[in-house]
Amino acid sequence: MKIGLLGCGTVGSGVYELLKHQRESLASLYKEDIVVKKILVKDIDKPRHIGDVEGLLTSNAYEILNDPDIELIVEALGGEGTAYEYIAYGLRNGKHVVTANKAVIAKHMKALIDLAEENNRALLFEASVGGGIPLLKPLKQRSLLNEFSEVKGILNGTSNFILTKMTEEALDFEEALAIAREKGYAEADPSDDIEGADVARKLAILASIIFKDNVALDSISYRGIRRITKADIKLIKDLGYSVKLLGKAVKENDRLSAIVEPVLIKSTSLFERVRDAYNMVAVRGDNLEELSFYGEGAGKKATANAVVSDILDVVNGSYRKETILRRNWLKDYNRSLIEGNYFFRVTPKLTSDYFEISKVFTRNAIVFSKRVENNDLIIITEASVAEAIDRVIAELEKAGFSFFFGRLEN
Amino acid sequence: MKIGLLGCGTVGSGVYELLKHQRESLASLYKEDIVVKKILVKDIDKPRHIGDVEGLLTSNAYEILNDPDIELIVEALGGEGTAYEYIAYGLRNGKHVVTANKAVIAKHMKALIDLAEENNRALLFEASVGGGIPLLKPLKQRSLLNEFSEVKGILNGTSNFILTKMTEEALDFEEALAIAREKGYAEADPSDDIEGADVARKLAILASIIFKDNVALDSISYRGIRRITKADIKLIKDLGYSVKLLGKAVKENDRLSAIVEPVLIKSTSLFERVRDAYNMVAVRGDNLEELSFYGEGAGKKATANAVVSDILDVVNGSYRKETILRRNWLKDYNRSLIEGNYFFRVTPKLTSDYFEISKVFTRNAIVFSKRVENNDLIIITEASVAEAIDRVIAELEKAGFSFFFGRLEN
Repeated sequence: MKIGLLGCGTVGSGVYELLKHQRESLASLYKEDIVVKKILVKDIDKPRHIGDVEGLLTSNAYEILNDPDIELIVEALGGEGTAYEYIAYGLRNGKHVVTANKAVIAKHMKALIDLAEENNRALLFEASVGGGIPLLKPLKQRSLLNEFSEVKGILNGTSNFILTKMTEEALDFEEALAIAREKGYAEADPSDDIEGADVARKLAILASIIFKDNVALDSISYRGIRRITKADIKLIKDLGYSVKLLGKAVKENDRLSAIVEPVLIKSTSLFERVRDAYNMVAVRGDNLEELSFYGEGAGKKATANAVVSDILDVVNGSYRKETILRRNWLKDYNRSLIEGNYFFRVTPKLTSDYFEISKVFTRNAIVFSKRVENNDLIIITEASVAEAIDRVIAELEKAGFSFFFGRLEN
Repeated sequence: MKIGLLGCGTVGSGVYELLKHQRESLASLYKEDIVVKKILVKDIDKPRHIGDVEGLLTSNAYEILNDPDIELIVEALGGEGTAYEYIAYGLRNGKHVVTANKAVIAKHMKALIDLAEENNRALLFEASVGGGIPLLKPLKQRSLLNEFSEVKGILNGTSNFILTKMTEEALDFEEALAIAREKGYAEADPSDDIEGADVARKLAILASIIFKDNVALDSISYRGIRRITKADIKLIKDLGYSVKLLGKAVKENDRLSAIVEPVLIKSTSLFERVRDAYNMVAVRGDNLEELSFYGEGAGKKATANAVVSDILDVVNGSYRKETILRRNWLKDYNRSLIEGNYFFRVTPKLTSDYFEISKVFTRNAIVFSKRVENNDLIIITEASVAEAIDRVIAELEKAGFSFFFGRLEN
């Protein structure tokens, strides 16, 4: 089995090293020598620290995609445009494809799965969600026997690391973000991690798999954690809750609600224990009351593990019969299944603002209790429809108030 | 694919119902009609509530085991002797075997796996550990790429339910046990669940899989939770810990330590959150820092799910290449890798006993701190070798003291 590796960054080099390290043991088990034949890199002359790869490097993707010797492509480029083209080209050209690319899969899952099926090839992406946690494969299998009704998850290590640091060391958001950057958990532009876009992608993939239908990425609304302050964390802790950035999708017959937003989690919940860059995913089905998976959501070794597991499923032939998007039943995307009570902290600019702030809620027909704490207005709403909360947020933003909010999660 | 079902109790009838319920959807996916042809029962005439099974029942196992039409046997009898014979007979006779029987697998894993390989047939037992949690399959696959160093788990629903009730409702052991019996969580004789034997079986299976060598059941020592009192729970809670019955196996080169015993778990641990009859398993490997699985450890639907998942792996052919006991590297079974600090509560019979109790520890070269609480002597030991703790327990028992102990788990 000859492999073509697209990309030699963290994921790509991790896959190369793991395959090399386990080559003999896998060869004896699978009676098949699994070996990387070519590696796509931007700069062939850049020094690399993954052993003797000199003869393997190329800067021309089509040298790999058109190589008749290569049966499987590992796409480890990241990003959207080029990666999508290469994956599609590879599948059309009769190559199996394994990828860790959540951006491409979340956006083009249906088209790529159709393409893989037409060409009778595997398209596997275990590493795209939850890093090293064996997640998609067991869920695919269990979804054959279960009607799942719910999935929720802490799916972004960067934001969870920031919230953990803020909670445990009483840091401000920017201080915690700076540490995340130092540790390599946050990128130069951390927007996708912090604003919820990254979680939305992973949630789209997870929900598609357990509900066995294509959950479109743009049906998932998301709200991030950038507004949160040290004082919010303390106040929420005193109320007996922790703040987490949670992705959640719920299905009821042909209705689906999916959202990513900050939530207040009770201190008795399993999710409350998820610290630092760890991830956790929980599902509910008609045969499985509650099932959770916990582990490293990223990292070179963990991700390489997941990618190579997919490669072994191709070698083994066990990816077959795992067709996942077998239905077409989701008709009604709205957020009504995830209504809830919301916590709001709103900081007035003048004392006279208290009345103005309350009016924003009343105007939108939201019932709430309120109190003043450290001059801030603390509001806990009754169960409120998502659209009303949207309007409140928009009005508070427009009026220029500083605020934070989170849904009270059961 | 014709299936022969041995046993029609909770597991057997659950498997029958799930296969029947999903028959059409599985047939369309696998292009194979998966159907139960015969069911072994003790009493053919007993009324059953699983639909029209009249023509399927037999009280003669060999009518199933020798039926050339039947390709796969589901062993759902439980117990040891007969079940082992039928499984071995089935494999020799060219049948695939799927079982939920932890007693047989823990004791005869190596012999049965060898037999399955000789006959080129599948032997799968996902449901034997962790009920509905997809556990053995992902661990088998990850063990191909990882050197695991540790596994630990809350693996017995009955004992965890009792500990949860005692903790949350301040009940005595016997009161909590009575509720467990009422709810169907505890059998008439709950010894195996409460004394740790059941956990030892599951730990033997888990450890064999992740360490890729046969971990003999009799190399696992176990201690149960029967000694614990309501007062112990409260005292331990005040110290910031919870009591759990934990199975743990640690490997270092060719040394293995495995033990089942009550442990004191810090209130910040994920394990501390595992309530009622739920299970949790955590592993550590060289490529996976920490990976945990959480879910229902038993129950008709959850167990049937796991059994049918195994059946689908046989239909799919994906069980091949999952040979697990590929090594023979464990040479040195002792408990030195799981040494730790121990908590002891010892109730003296007379005031003069305090000195006598302390002497038991000193005599065994254990360093400890002590204090008196509600007339009981509370002792926290320094890290102590397992054999010394064994001797202390034996001496306290011999002297007739009431006591409870648990290892402080990190």
